Amino acid sequence: MSGIHERARDAFAAIQDRICEALETLDGRKKFIEDRWEHRADGAADGGGRSRVLAGGNVFEKAGVNLADVRGRLSERLAARLEVPPQLFEATGVSLVVHPLSPMVPTVHMNVRHIQLLGEQGDGHGPSWFGGGADLTPHYLFEEDARDFHRVLRDVCGRHEVGDYPAFKRWCDEYFHLGHRGEARGIGGIFFDYLKQSPEETLAFVEDVGNGFLPAYLPIVERRMALPWWDRQRHWQLLRRGRYVEFNLVHDRGTLFGLETGGRTESILMSLPPLVRWDYDAKPEPDSPEAALMDVLLNPREWIG
Amino acid sequence: MSGIHERARDAFAAIQDRICEALETLDGRKKFIEDRWEHRADGAADGGGRSRVLAGGNVFEKAGVNLADVRGRLSERLAARLEVPPQLFEATGVSLVVHPLSPMVPTVHMNVRHIQLLGEQGDGHGPSWFGGGADLTPHYLFEEDARDFHRVLRDVCGRHEVGDYPAFKRWCDEYFHLGHRGEARGIGGIFFDYLKQSPEETLAFVEDVGNGFLPAYLPIVERRMALPWWDRQRHWQLLRRGRYVEFNLVHDRGTLFGLETGGRTESILMSLPPLVRWDYDAKPEPDSPEAALMDVLLNPREWIG
Repeated sequence: MSGIHERARDAFAAIQDRICEALETLDGRKKFIEDRWEHRADGAADGGGRSRVLAGGNVFEKAGVNLADVRGRLSERLAARLEVPPQLFEATGVSLVVHPLSPMVPTVHMNVRHIQLLGEQGDGHGPSWFGGGADLTPHYLFEEDARDFHRVLRDVCGRHEVGDYPAFKRWCDEYFHLGHRGEARGIGGIFFDYLKQSPEETLAFVEDVGNGFLPAYLPIVERRMALPWWDRQRHWQLLRRGRYVEFNLVHDRGTLFGLETGGRTESILMSLPPLVRWDYDAKPEPDSPEAALMDVLLNPREWIG
Repeated sequence: MSGIHERARDAFAAIQDRICEALETLDGRKKFIEDRWEHRADGAADGGGRSRVLAGGNVFEKAGVNLADVRGRLSERLAARLEVPPQLFEATGVSLVVHPLSPMVPTVHMNVRHIQLLGEQGDGHGPSWFGGGADLTPHYLFEEDARDFHRVLRDVCGRHEVGDYPAFKRWCDEYFHLGHRGEARGIGGIFFDYLKQSPEETLAFVEDVGNGFLPAYLPIVERRMALPWWDRQRHWQLLRRGRYVEFNLVHDRGTLFGLETGGRTESILMSLPPLVRWDYDAKPEPDSPEAALMDVLLNPREWIG
């Protein structure tokens, strides 16, 4: 096991601790439940993780923060996509999705990860890389929130040689796109993958992304959590959560990578919202707040100059 | 256009009419709303369909019955899977999913379809085939229902040279399987695809499958719709609907074929349930009715001798 992989894992564990503590404190009602699990596949596969879920809170209807460090075998399809021979790998990461109760508070996702290829026998060292990002999925648009979220992420990128906000912002818009809907999942953020150069500097950068999550998200929650909402806003939130499910199950490489490599299904699908609706051909009324959200999802913007 | 393709389309339209009328009558409260739509893709692509949805009924929370007749271009990936060169195709079919309000009434799916490949310029005739099937997804197990459903489908198969109940039953179990859960979607039924021989006889068979839907399903609805249920049963139903979504978005070839070939998203995703839950790591209590259902989903059975 490489030194960098172990250090990444330890850094991700600390990030999970810090985030869970802060979300619990803000929620004030429910605590995270932790589930430690082991990863079992064929003989050479092992590892495990700790999944933490807070459900039915005052502020958070479902928040899942997952830490994993697993070894497994690339499927042929994945190996082909990565343009490497089939082989063993190890992967560690922390991944979270927060579904707030209030439709006025945005859903958020953050992930940082390190992948190390290990060769056909699992004893060698192939390429390794970091990936990750953070993106915001509001049900109602507050431009101030979108700008602030992006500003924090831009500042994180700005502190590191390897951080390239304009490129990672564009990558995020491209990645979190529902092709079959022609819609963005949310108002974006940053996304990056296959960062292979300068592992030391990149680890410092992804740690900073993980630690940037709280300052990027919590002020938005605090601003919006006391706003009133009614059935109409809740209904719209559940429909938008349907799009979240569609993205994660049809398009998300991370989800499909996990399911294909024999990852732990309950931990991978922790990202799915607690309650979701699909109505046939639901469309917002013209000039409504719902239509204002759709406008930025259909026409992604630059949020900061 | 081949004569068989036109005749299949007309037969499918008649099946849609008959089924919608019967479901409306049984529901007694809501009617189907029809949406006629046109299919537009690149220059050579056209066609359309009529989608019908009944929502918020007494018996049916959401029933979608879709008729389509579209022309389009195979994606490279689909062409590779079919082992043919990229080319134009035409496809017609009727497809339905019914999500009842009561957790005691099973969800059901039926589809019959005809695909005709048209060559690279769209002017030739390549291979053509029929596909389809019907399968039942209960939230609570009534063995009588499972046996009756299979018996009707076996009898339909028995009336036709091309109908092979044992093979199609097995194919159904294999197809409607959630690999990432190790679970069947429901208690099965029949599934068949790529039926290329004897188009005349096969058309008669798939018509009979379409017309067999009502006698296979309605008696079950009538038996179970008046049973009492409470929050516990509703909660379980919403969790099981989550599995339905997972199957349709991760595994179902029909859904992915539609989304990839530029099909009409709202018509394809009409199959998704109206309201769905995902709880982290939800497990039924031992020896409960919910556990009895899980037992047959984890260990698919022969329902009739």
